[in-house]
Amino acid sequence: MELVARQRSFGGWQSRYKHRSEVLNCDMIFAIYLPPQAEKGPVPVLWWLSGLTCNDENFVTKAGAQRLAARLGMAIVCPDTSPRGTDLPGEHESYDFGSGAGFYVNATEAPWASHYRMYDYVVSELPALVREHFPVSEREAISGHSMGGHGALVCALKNPGRYDSVSAFAPIVNPADCDWGIKAFTGYLGEDRSAWLAWDTCALVAEGKSRQPLLVDQGLADNFLDSQLHPERLEKVCAEHDHPLQLRRHEHYDHSYFFIASLIDDHLRYHARHLGLAGEAQQPA
Amino acid sequence: MELVARQRSFGGWQSRYKHRSEVLNCDMIFAIYLPPQAEKGPVPVLWWLSGLTCNDENFVTKAGAQRLAARLGMAIVCPDTSPRGTDLPGEHESYDFGSGAGFYVNATEAPWASHYRMYDYVVSELPALVREHFPVSEREAISGHSMGGHGALVCALKNPGRYDSVSAFAPIVNPADCDWGIKAFTGYLGEDRSAWLAWDTCALVAEGKSRQPLLVDQGLADNFLDSQLHPERLEKVCAEHDHPLQLRRHEHYDHSYFFIASLIDDHLRYHARHLGLAGEAQQPA
Repeated sequence: MELVARQRSFGGWQSRYKHRSEVLNCDMIFAIYLPPQAEKGPVPVLWWLSGLTCNDENFVTKAGAQRLAARLGMAIVCPDTSPRGTDLPGEHESYDFGSGAGFYVNATEAPWASHYRMYDYVVSELPALVREHFPVSEREAISGHSMGGHGALVCALKNPGRYDSVSAFAPIVNPADCDWGIKAFTGYLGEDRSAWLAWDTCALVAEGKSRQPLLVDQGLADNFLDSQLHPERLEKVCAEHDHPLQLRRHEHYDHSYFFIASLIDDHLRYHARHLGLAGEAQQPA
Repeated sequence: MELVARQRSFGGWQSRYKHRSEVLNCDMIFAIYLPPQAEKGPVPVLWWLSGLTCNDENFVTKAGAQRLAARLGMAIVCPDTSPRGTDLPGEHESYDFGSGAGFYVNATEAPWASHYRMYDYVVSELPALVREHFPVSEREAISGHSMGGHGALVCALKNPGRYDSVSAFAPIVNPADCDWGIKAFTGYLGEDRSAWLAWDTCALVAEGKSRQPLLVDQGLADNFLDSQLHPERLEKVCAEHDHPLQLRRHEHYDHSYFFIASLIDDHLRYHARHLGLAGEAQQPA
């Protein structure tokens, strides 16, 4: 593992590391924020999954999360959004498929299956690497935005008990039935739509393997609200299956990082409470 | 004036506007954050001047200032760092001269003098435009980073009584005697070095027209500390002339926006106190 960059941030360290991923069969870069408390012992981790076109840097530079993470004593790890450095046919041609658009699934279709296994990377390989090299505890929470909100919800729902809490900003909750998801799932998973349901939040809620509460924020001025995001579908399936959902709609907010920045503190405090950082979370911050 | 973009941020609005600048003889874009309080009446303004290579967007997306500005009730205006859309000979060839590097002076040398008058733009033309179109009061503070820290200090020192407070992050305090400044001032102001002193913080402190207190933060892991910034020169001239200076050195911090983000709340609270927002500034934020 190679240190790419390291910068002081709110008394902690914001770093980027490059490593060889066996799961993805390529070199990857991830970002990690270690709060000041990590110098004294293990801290819990929030996994942040970013959206289409992003890499490990967008959240780090734009969300403003380090300020409160430093007070709460929470590490934040930001994986990239797809394998990198590969050149599969068509991989770099569109913003919503291939590089920058891994969709946090394990691809089964050639040629994607040999690299595009972002689910295994995020849930297994990267956590093991992070635990090996950094002072983090076993306590984990997960969150993300848009495609990354989909990723966070799916990772949590597929692994009951694994994450202490899960939240999402403007998530793609029903990728099996929206344009972004249909394009991605067709490419990565093939034409058999029944295989898609294992990667669809609405379907996973209906399946009922997990009843972990979901915290979701959605801006009402989001350009993708009606075409791709469909929060009302999540609301409906959660109501039908008595799945705990806190869906908050916010007038005037759009799909951008200004929306995320405006609400990230709420999410950090929510996760802090579930991660056992409640004492610190009560402090004015 | 034309609205370029507008996004909800912490209950206020983060916007970009394009307008014709008579002073700069070109079209310019600036960013303005209006906090929720601006819907009820005029709010004071913090002017933020960015550094080399930046435009109006860097501070807006990376500093995380809107959170506290929204609580304090402070507008923040970010001008661009140079004229744009012109194509003077050599204007776009280097990062530290020409576009993105206006240095907040009024150029006297051809061909720059016909456009590069960023001082007049920042001190006169843009404030008049902002007051005409937005609910801002007469109360103003000014801050900036690196080249913009130089700009903020120079604007304040040249206009005693104009700004309620001034602060800077890693400012170029002695441009008349560092490589960045010598290159810029030679190009914009000519070979006569005596003319440079009107745009040099250390010289202005020595001149003594203003004794306004200066708040300066400097990271000790800043790559440009010894080659361009020389805070010890500001410390020396302030001591010699009994000019109030609060110079804070921060171990491990570099020249990046991670440094600015880590300390911006301190600066906003400092300016809030001077701008008469002391009540709000006392709230936990």
